[in-house]
Amino acid sequence: MTAFSYTVSATDGSARLGQVQTAHGVIDTPAFMPVGTAGTVKAMMSNSVAQTGAQIVLGNTYHLMLRPGADRIERLGGLHRFMNWAGPILTDSGGFQVMSLSKLRKMTEAGVTFQSHLDGSKHELTPEASIEIQRKLDSNITMQLDECPAHTEDKKIIDTSMGLSLRWARRSKDAFDDREGYGLFGIVQGGVFDDLREQSAKGLIDIGFNGYAVGGLAVGEPQEMMFKVLDGLIPHMQKDKPRYMMGVGTPADIVGSVLRGIDMFDCVMPTRSGRTGKAFTRRGDVNIRNARHADDPRPIDEHCICPACKDYSRAYIHHLIKAREILGPMLLTWHNVQYYQDLMAGLRESIGASNLDAFVKRFHNIKSQGDIEQL
Amino acid sequence: MTAFSYTVSATDGSARLGQVQTAHGVIDTPAFMPVGTAGTVKAMMSNSVAQTGAQIVLGNTYHLMLRPGADRIERLGGLHRFMNWAGPILTDSGGFQVMSLSKLRKMTEAGVTFQSHLDGSKHELTPEASIEIQRKLDSNITMQLDECPAHTEDKKIIDTSMGLSLRWARRSKDAFDDREGYGLFGIVQGGVFDDLREQSAKGLIDIGFNGYAVGGLAVGEPQEMMFKVLDGLIPHMQKDKPRYMMGVGTPADIVGSVLRGIDMFDCVMPTRSGRTGKAFTRRGDVNIRNARHADDPRPIDEHCICPACKDYSRAYIHHLIKAREILGPMLLTWHNVQYYQDLMAGLRESIGASNLDAFVKRFHNIKSQGDIEQL
Repeated sequence: MTAFSYTVSATDGSARLGQVQTAHGVIDTPAFMPVGTAGTVKAMMSNSVAQTGAQIVLGNTYHLMLRPGADRIERLGGLHRFMNWAGPILTDSGGFQVMSLSKLRKMTEAGVTFQSHLDGSKHELTPEASIEIQRKLDSNITMQLDECPAHTEDKKIIDTSMGLSLRWARRSKDAFDDREGYGLFGIVQGGVFDDLREQSAKGLIDIGFNGYAVGGLAVGEPQEMMFKVLDGLIPHMQKDKPRYMMGVGTPADIVGSVLRGIDMFDCVMPTRSGRTGKAFTRRGDVNIRNARHADDPRPIDEHCICPACKDYSRAYIHHLIKAREILGPMLLTWHNVQYYQDLMAGLRESIGASNLDAFVKRFHNIKSQGDIEQL
Repeated sequence: MTAFSYTVSATDGSARLGQVQTAHGVIDTPAFMPVGTAGTVKAMMSNSVAQTGAQIVLGNTYHLMLRPGADRIERLGGLHRFMNWAGPILTDSGGFQVMSLSKLRKMTEAGVTFQSHLDGSKHELTPEASIEIQRKLDSNITMQLDECPAHTEDKKIIDTSMGLSLRWARRSKDAFDDREGYGLFGIVQGGVFDDLREQSAKGLIDIGFNGYAVGGLAVGEPQEMMFKVLDGLIPHMQKDKPRYMMGVGTPADIVGSVLRGIDMFDCVMPTRSGRTGKAFTRRGDVNIRNARHADDPRPIDEHCICPACKDYSRAYIHHLIKAREILGPMLLTWHNVQYYQDLMAGLRESIGASNLDAFVKRFHNIKSQGDIEQL
């Protein structure tokens, strides 16, 4: 078996090229993890996800514990076998979705009780319960349960919440069964306050995790504020552990975060956008619903290797989305996941070649030439 | 270029093994044509459809003329290029959907005027217009416009309607541009009345078509009545032209019709059923929504080569369908289309080996052992 490990093989400024080793294979970082909420990256077969170059996917503990249930997935051989994904899997703790999706929540020092948004059934999620559920799912990277207050809250509330998340981090570490090739990540909280972020990071490092996530960002604040928080926080994060920016983000968010030293990302943006007609391209975003695509025989992105771009025209995909045909979301999702993976591959290659600056300049130049809609 | 042709290479009783040659390739018959209503076999990429062994797909003139429009598809290089389907395509005349989907219809000797179900826009469909639209779509097999009265109507009404369809057949033939590798099919009407069916068939043969379809069946009548109509009709159909049973049907409908000498089929059943959780298997039908599948690690059909059966369990697909995940319809549709193609391949092989009886016996035996639900 392989020990869970992280090694840096090159740096360029603060950006790092690295490899995370897990029991289910390696993750080359910077990495983007497509989100497979309920055990499926929506509208894609798992083999197709792997074909884009994705090495790790994310599963949502909240959704999976409610349906089909963690015990069932364990009986069926774990989430890898269940969803036919041979590579590494990261699961979140369930906390974020409890706060955003469930009904009648009650938060205490012990944990949170809530009612399922599916059938109203009552559940309790404690730091220990979350670890146990993620063990049943056989997640390679387990996330601690944390509290995610609104980023608009007072500093006092953010501070109190950060303290609770730290105590839950301790309990998560104690509950985690340290199996070979499996890791546990702590989550830095503290809102937009540099001192709280520093305190949170140091507290987590004292406990000791296999990696550290940045939580509570990408929740509606401007990009510059997000980057400012990262600028303050990164110096206090361990150099020899992977850094994971939760729920981020747009291509520009990712590029800016990689520049600042972030290694891992997840976001529903490529998949969710795909279902509503938005395509990410090397020349900017495309809203394929726009009437100007109705007669366009060109592919969405002539440099893209995905089936949507190899085999179909913008006119066809425009038609599919207008007609609400399932193939529309299927093709656009694949394309967007491919775009994100290509972006990460470009970032990794540039860091390895020590020309990340040039890559980033090109990235912003092309974007600022204007939306592909005008082309 | 290849001339449009049909050759019989073997027979077994009334059943025929044949090949239809078109400008876009060969169709081995008996053949099942997956339905690609709006230019897409719902929830499948065109390459996946080809992977199941399907050699021809069907497009719906009514849907395509309204959205994205026949002129647009012509400008974009025809339906083959538009939907990335290199093989033959058959399109219906649009008449059936005008009657079942559109609003405010008015039928005259000239044709039918109707309002689009999408936006209320007014359209006219005449025999000549239908031929012209199908030419713009670049359909390899064009269907004549016909009238499809309810099968419960009086004989007098069926008779009158059949006469109109015959006159429209004549006009369709006159309007059809006889390009190399493209064919026009007439449609036999006459309800459940043997004399009307005979009269319709003879009238069409007098006009002369590249193939003959049986219309107005599989519209709610019992299977035995459908077979009885076929038994009466087949002796009056040409031996050296393909016979196409429109909108049929269940696996048992197809097997019974092939036994009686039918060569081509289309039906939304495999695709539509896939979207609602029904799987066809060698042991009978499976409703994957049934709770008994929730913990079942076995594939839907262990003899099936489709991705749903190779890579995923019944438990997983049950979960996908319950959770309304797009991957559920994607996998079940692929499986069902694969099942239908495997069924046709089995029929063709058995006719070629002159042991169709044994195949049919096995087919019915396995079915009567009971639903796979009990296994």
